Amino acid sequence: MGLDCAFLFEMTSNKYSVILGNLGNTCDRFLPTGYKQVRPKGEMIALAASIPGIEGLELVGGWDVTPQNTSEIQSMMQEHKLACVSIIPDLFSRQIWGSGSFCSRDAQVRTAAGDETENAAEIASRLGCPLLNLWLGQDGYDYPLQANFGQQRAWMVEGIRAVAARWPHLKIALEYKLKEPRIRSFHARAADTLLMVQEIGLPNVGVCIDVGHAFVAQENVAESAWMLHHYGKKLFHLHYNDNYGHWDDDMIVGSIHLAQYVELSYWLKQIGYEGWHSMDLYPYREDGGRAVAESVAFLCDLERSLTWTKLEEIGHLLAEGDATASTRWMRNFVFGNKSAGSPPPS
Amino acid sequence: MGLDCAFLFEMTSNKYSVILGNLGNTCDRFLPTGYKQVRPKGEMIALAASIPGIEGLELVGGWDVTPQNTSEIQSMMQEHKLACVSIIPDLFSRQIWGSGSFCSRDAQVRTAAGDETENAAEIASRLGCPLLNLWLGQDGYDYPLQANFGQQRAWMVEGIRAVAARWPHLKIALEYKLKEPRIRSFHARAADTLLMVQEIGLPNVGVCIDVGHAFVAQENVAESAWMLHHYGKKLFHLHYNDNYGHWDDDMIVGSIHLAQYVELSYWLKQIGYEGWHSMDLYPYREDGGRAVAESVAFLCDLERSLTWTKLEEIGHLLAEGDATASTRWMRNFVFGNKSAGSPPPS
Amino acid sequence: MGLDCAFLFEMTSNKYSVILGNLGNTCDRFLPTGYKQVRPKGEMIALAASIPGIEGLELVGGWDVTPQNTSEIQSMMQEHKLACVSIIPDLFSRQIWGSGSFCSRDAQVRTAAGDETENAAEIASRLGCPLLNLWLGQDGYDYPLQANFGQQRAWMVEGIRAVAARWPHLKIALEYKLKEPRIRSFHARAADTLLMVQEIGLPNVGVCIDVGHAFVAQENVAESAWMLHHYGKKLFHLHYNDNYGHWDDDMIVGSIHLAQYVELSYWLKQIGYEGWHSMDLYPYREDGGRAVAESVAFLCDLERSLTWTKLEEIGHLLAEGDATASTRWMRNFVFGNKSAGSPPPS
Amino acid sequence: MGLDCAFLFEMTSNKYSVILGNLGNTCDRFLPTGYKQVRPKGEMIALAASIPGIEGLELVGGWDVTPQNTSEIQSMMQEHKLACVSIIPDLFSRQIWGSGSFCSRDAQVRTAAGDETENAAEIASRLGCPLLNLWLGQDGYDYPLQANFGQQRAWMVEGIRAVAARWPHLKIALEYKLKEPRIRSFHARAADTLLMVQEIGLPNVGVCIDVGHAFVAQENVAESAWMLHHYGKKLFHLHYNDNYGHWDDDMIVGSIHLAQYVELSYWLKQIGYEGWHSMDLYPYREDGGRAVAESVAFLCDLERSLTWTKLEEIGHLLAEGDATASTRWMRNFVFGNKSAGSPPPS
Repeated sequence: MGLDCAFLFEMTSNKYSVILGNLGNTCDRFLPTGYKQVRPKGEMIALAASIPGIEGLELVGGWDVTPQNTSEIQSMMQEHKLACVSIIPDLFSRQIWGSGSFCSRDAQVRTAAGDETENAAEIASRLGCPLLNLWLGQDGYDYPLQANFGQQRAWMVEGIRAVAARWPHLKIALEYKLKEPRIRSFHARAADTLLMVQEIGLPNVGVCIDVGHAFVAQENVAESAWMLHHYGKKLFHLHYNDNYGHWDDDMIVGSIHLAQYVELSYWLKQIGYEGWHSMDLYPYREDGGRAVAESVAFLCDLERSLTWTKLEEIGHLLAEGDATASTRWMRNFVFGNKSAGSPPPS
Repeated sequence: MGLDCAFLFEMTSNKYSVILGNLGNTCDRFLPTGYKQVRPKGEMIALAASIPGIEGLELVGGWDVTPQNTSEIQSMMQEHKLACVSIIPDLFSRQIWGSGSFCSRDAQVRTAAGDETENAAEIASRLGCPLLNLWLGQDGYDYPLQANFGQQRAWMVEGIRAVAARWPHLKIALEYKLKEPRIRSFHARAADTLLMVQEIGLPNVGVCIDVGHAFVAQENVAESAWMLHHYGKKLFHLHYNDNYGHWDDDMIVGSIHLAQYVELSYWLKQIGYEGWHSMDLYPYREDGGRAVAESVAFLCDLERSLTWTKLEEIGHLLAEGDATASTRWMRNFVFGNKSAGSPPPS
Repeated sequence: MGLDCAFLFEMTSNKYSVILGNLGNTCDRFLPTGYKQVRPKGEMIALAASIPGIEGLELVGGWDVTPQNTSEIQSMMQEHKLACVSIIPDLFSRQIWGSGSFCSRDAQVRTAAGDETENAAEIASRLGCPLLNLWLGQDGYDYPLQANFGQQRAWMVEGIRAVAARWPHLKIALEYKLKEPRIRSFHARAADTLLMVQEIGLPNVGVCIDVGHAFVAQENVAESAWMLHHYGKKLFHLHYNDNYGHWDDDMIVGSIHLAQYVELSYWLKQIGYEGWHSMDLYPYREDGGRAVAESVAFLCDLERSLTWTKLEEIGHLLAEGDATASTRWMRNFVFGNKSAGSPPPS
Repeated sequence: MGLDCAFLFEMTSNKYSVILGNLGNTCDRFLPTGYKQVRPKGEMIALAASIPGIEGLELVGGWDVTPQNTSEIQSMMQEHKLACVSIIPDLFSRQIWGSGSFCSRDAQVRTAAGDETENAAEIASRLGCPLLNLWLGQDGYDYPLQANFGQQRAWMVEGIRAVAARWPHLKIALEYKLKEPRIRSFHARAADTLLMVQEIGLPNVGVCIDVGHAFVAQENVAESAWMLHHYGKKLFHLHYNDNYGHWDDDMIVGSIHLAQYVELSYWLKQIGYEGWHSMDLYPYREDGGRAVAESVAFLCDLERSLTWTKLEEIGHLLAEGDATASTRWMRNFVFGNKSAGSPPPS
């Protein structure tokens, strides 16, 4: 790797960030104490800053950052020249949210969800952070005959709207996910989340695409990005990871998919996406720093490889719609001058 | 079986219909000439009429019914007291549509799609049929880097809007399906189809739910029905069949799922759905008449079993959200007084 | 329900048991401290005993039961007249197993896996428990180009064979699961697990079917049971739960599937299965006692409903292979004399 | 591409072939007359021969080749220097097989299946073709409570064994597929098909892996290849295509997956696979010749790129099992000296 990496990373113009927790301990229901050790926040922040390409952090409100430690966290981030990209209010990791936050049948829980989000907004404001990322993973249901869609979704609309209205300068991105931890999420797919965004009806409410969540929903993630942009410029944020298409495996970016990332990159340029490109892995058994570094490196390699010439070529492919030509282009992209070409026999 | 079936079928108030082709030959890519014999239309219509509970037919325009045979088909239907429930323009079974109908890159094909739909509207009008069901199965793509979402979707909006605008008294239902025959459909899920319906912006354009398609998209079909109703009363039509949740197997209704049909029935009452309940099977190897009869019998049994008392009980379950109570209710629904109950141990 | 439950539960002849942990706290990666409170073991055992139909327990070795507390646990179980059905060595919930137990690249970890299993065998022997259930959930891999199948599977064969050879009177059941916690398990499906059982080549090594795992692997669980029996009488144990077919949701038995449970029940009779029918739920948000009680009640209702007459009818259906007749039989099973029947129209 | 393709194709040592039908018309259940035109056999054979890298053909017995036209087909193939790689008896595309061939409840159908396979063996023998590929796509079932596993599988064993015993010098490969055209296949996965191969108990009966079928069964195809080899050297044949992992889309090879093909290539070398690498696409809307050419080009590019150095590197990765290192290796494989590397931060 005798290349001048610093130089190469400077050639990219996308802004890359990471959710701080990616660098900490990881657990699952079978090993709840975790596959690794808990790391001090300061160490995690320093580690994030050391990853080539990383310029920003997402923090879980109430967990990474609290009203009490905001200043401390801020100095650490400043020291390491890291921007605060988003605050993710913790509406999922405590018993109180077990049956939902904004959609809970318990009015006190709904109020608490509003308060938690307010706190996060407050913290964001103090940190100069422009966006709240609302992942309402507990807001859903599991069994047939269990949910009252009308009532519970109305509560969500009401609760999210109330916070968003009070913080008009803060972008609020709703992150969708087909399932987990609930088997059925209320924010399950790009399009149904967008419908709720429209119902909320405020300019500062939009959607976050987690690329892996889109894969699990069997969406073509590039088309989801396009759609969110087309219907009201509502693509507010992006999370990256990878999986096999059946579950939110949260793997290293690019470990499974390739062509879909190329297509996404093209369309993000087309729609003029200027937000952050944020790593959201869950490296159960891998070293977090290396897994994130590898993910950013993949996206940087991709960004650099998709020169204007290449992007123009893609534009032509999309205009033509010839699947064999598109596949051939991808093959040459991968094998480059190792490739034999494929003289069309007919 | 010693029951007076006629009487029992009269106890239902839902209107049941069938797509005529369900009673004909069936094929697949491995046996394209079909698993059965082709049946004359007259015989199929008579057979449909003989199925207890069936009161209406859906016809594929350009295939079951053409400008030439409309009067003939009409007399046959009148003779058998069958209503015409919908016309489904054939925008999928000819080579011309192989790369899309309304979304085709070829302007002539797009024009042809409009003309075909016009013809269907014309036929519907002559038959007093209130609805066109547009299943745009070829409108999509297959490979990465193949589709130009923006352009192709715009063509769809334009083409559908043009027809719909000319036939304001005809309802036009867009039927979504995640995939097949294209691997990626433009009308893939309830919510994204609804977004296009909103973009088209005409009161007579809505959505058709095919229950099996909702299963394949991993939607909770009851929630999809609710959502289409909530956002503008756009649930226009319903197709029924069953599958294992991974592919559009088009099996006999109720052969795989049960609780989800119960939940759907409840919500259809709640939202006041008054359209047809139409069978859309593809009984590859089964006798079509028997498979459809069995499907209608399932839905009639379900309808009769869901008495007002039961529906009220469901209402309470949804208000509570207790998964064990909901499951217990379903168990008692199935096993009735065969059941031992389950004294709660805690 | 006003019925004499005790009497009804006595009418069953299957032996029902539960994994003790079902009645404790439940967590996931987002809420690792759990959706509930931790319960003392004594309370969990008493609760298990209070569930109508439950006559046995499965215990996780090293967690529920240790060399130290074996006698204490034994007295509690005797007091409540509960048999010890299996010991499940904990080869999954500690950091040491994070990269596999018997398949680990680290020889010390492999030795530890053998020791842990020895301990479990020792405990089983003291408790008069006839079976070890080996769920090797960490034995697998996640990424492409990560596993050395040949070497790692050979270690598994060797390690399992060594323990099994030392405990010839103890049955050892290998429980398969497509994925989770590893994305790829070495014991992923019924058939490939059976191949390893054959390779191990000892009469006391067989397979455990977890019904939900079979659903996720898209197996027809009845066929898997038949297959394990046919190739060497290797169906040693059964775990019950339910899911939507895409992930190991570990839901209440019968909450989603019905016909597949009927078919499984039939084939278990056919192959003369005499082992335990054990509940293996993971009731994240439900009361464990009620969820397990509901599950057993479902299986008891099913058992009682499948009278010899019904079983004979199923035999005829299988001989005929007429899908419409099979579906109609299921419909009558569900709707009984509420049903209108379905006079075949053709 | 300006490269000397002929030279590059000569650098490969794998033997590439194609199923002749890939180059003909393609249809599905919605467009049964096909997306293209029917092509004369002679033209298809010439086209196959013109595809760089293709040296052999697979023919469907009773369809591409019959007892009547065997000599004619043979001369055409000789003229074009194409070897006959396999005969695939047509046990799927006629009404008689609609409810199964070897597993049919109708003894006459089972006899006919045997006869059809005999004919194919006869043709193979005349053509000097070393292998029959038995894809028993109709041998399975669809509905719960429909199949009599024990009886129907026994018929399959008996029927296949009878033919195999009569042609000891002909390899017989059983090709598995999870589903389609039956929703449940008897030969569904690598491992359960292998179990039947073992039951048949003849040295000339083995398994064919269709890479896409392995993806749909959620197998890691490299592991399936290893397993078939490990348990008796039973990997007899290989079909190539690609898909999204949910259905047998039969797309151009390499259009979706990459890392899995690399891993498969490695293990095929490891186990010393010397059979053919055969294209089995179903290019619904693509030009067949170009789609097949693109597929072979992908595999040739891959073969050439996996130099001995690279293969050795993979060996080290598998020995280590470090997912980040494996992913990084894949990234460098793709981006080569375009890559910035990823200096590990920790």
